[in-house]
Amino acid sequence: MSQYFTEDASVEAVNARMGQNINPRLAQVMASLVKHLHAFAKDVHLSQAEWDIAIEFLTKTGQICSGERQEFILLSDVLGFSMLVDAINNRRPAGATENTVFGPFHVDNAPELPMGSNISLDGKGESCRFEGMVIDLHGNPIAGARVDVWSDNADGFYDVQQPDIQPKWNNRGVFITGADGRYAFQGIKPVSYPIPDDGPVGQMLNHLGRHPYRPAHMHYLVTAKGFEKLVTHTFVGDDTYLSSDAVFGVKKTLIAPFEHVNDGQTIWRSPFDFVLTPV
Amino acid sequence: MSQYFTEDASVEAVNARMGQNINPRLAQVMASLVKHLHAFAKDVHLSQAEWDIAIEFLTKTGQICSGERQEFILLSDVLGFSMLVDAINNRRPAGATENTVFGPFHVDNAPELPMGSNISLDGKGESCRFEGMVIDLHGNPIAGARVDVWSDNADGFYDVQQPDIQPKWNNRGVFITGADGRYAFQGIKPVSYPIPDDGPVGQMLNHLGRHPYRPAHMHYLVTAKGFEKLVTHTFVGDDTYLSSDAVFGVKKTLIAPFEHVNDGQTIWRSPFDFVLTPV
Repeated sequence: MSQYFTEDASVEAVNARMGQNINPRLAQVMASLVKHLHAFAKDVHLSQAEWDIAIEFLTKTGQICSGERQEFILLSDVLGFSMLVDAINNRRPAGATENTVFGPFHVDNAPELPMGSNISLDGKGESCRFEGMVIDLHGNPIAGARVDVWSDNADGFYDVQQPDIQPKWNNRGVFITGADGRYAFQGIKPVSYPIPDDGPVGQMLNHLGRHPYRPAHMHYLVTAKGFEKLVTHTFVGDDTYLSSDAVFGVKKTLIAPFEHVNDGQTIWRSPFDFVLTPV
Repeated sequence: MSQYFTEDASVEAVNARMGQNINPRLAQVMASLVKHLHAFAKDVHLSQAEWDIAIEFLTKTGQICSGERQEFILLSDVLGFSMLVDAINNRRPAGATENTVFGPFHVDNAPELPMGSNISLDGKGESCRFEGMVIDLHGNPIAGARVDVWSDNADGFYDVQQPDIQPKWNNRGVFITGADGRYAFQGIKPVSYPIPDDGPVGQMLNHLGRHPYRPAHMHYLVTAKGFEKLVTHTFVGDDTYLSSDAVFGVKKTLIAPFEHVNDGQTIWRSPFDFVLTPV
């Protein structure tokens, strides 16, 4: 191999440059990144003008980031990359509940509430009872499981997006299962909403002929001693955007029933069991 | 194919989402990008923690960019991507002078000077006479070729990096060839210098066991009616960093002789002919 750059051996020229005593995992990851990035440029015969546009896009994507906004995670989300990394790292046996993306709206230390409590504090939306069991792969109830839940309100916003409008902890709560493994809480039937689309990623979606909406979903973070952490959503089965989630978060097994009840206490009921995998 | 995301069909899930009436070239480029990015994640089994580090790196890279600094171009440079895009778009017949990266230090409208003029205005460094011909693939001289040249000074800085220290247009000039196709100017033997390494890209190079230096070089932008634009450097053949240019700009054919002269007028002489390709 020539010690100088050539188009044919561009990958080798770059990767041969790494030092001998560096972190071996870093070396592996960077060598693969260079290989795939160069293959991309060669595949499409990327022009200088196109690369200039990409540089400008990446720069704007970094510059719009702030304490409240992470446009690079959004970019990763809309390219299916976040879901892919999640999938690679959370392969589970058949029957176990699948993971999906965590999203940016979880808040630590939400209040722990008595089983059955109402988490909708703003009185908006169609009430829904969420209930089911946390079980192991054999169907045995898991006691002491921590079920941390969060959703948007009926206007499509999380409480943290509207701190001056929504009550603190609106549509959030933590429930701990008893010996029967059961959980239950009262919330609202969630609604679909757009991801932030007023920045570079929104512009990109527009150029790609894609909409920015996520189908309605309830977030769950379920943890229990001796089991893998489960980060997931349940999706409302009749949502318009179910097959076109802007961040590709939907998995078939996560579509939950939303049954019309109207028993004077609630309008909807959504039963769903969470099946955890042992560590 | 499932309409929902799966690890195996992650690329298809994302690329099937593009609209029907979008720019076909954009569709082609994005589909390839998604394919190669997903292949990278799968190849190395990228962990969530690693991806979090990458998101933070990309964000910092965007945020350090300013009117005077383009850290994403620097990132592209050190990954050999800039050289690759340049190579893909400037394939030339054997015998033609090769391209290399343009770099960030060119300034438009440098003064046009009489042939043989001295461009070193600060009196620093070892004087060097640069001379040769601009010719076509058959060796015929090209009249009216515009030879735009620029280099660092003896301290390793371009004039635009030190506007308060260096004279304006120090080590820059434009020369127009006559009927004989010859060019000649007096400058200094350039010196090696580091790319900006106090940001995220510098930190990355450090983790990769790489230094930030570029081998000494003289920049050329050679244009003539009826010929392809040539963007190139000539490199000083005995430079320490010749085989480890931080941005992979060196090509074997661009290493120029630097001959010791000491004739009372100059210390060095560097002859080099530029061979242009017809458009």
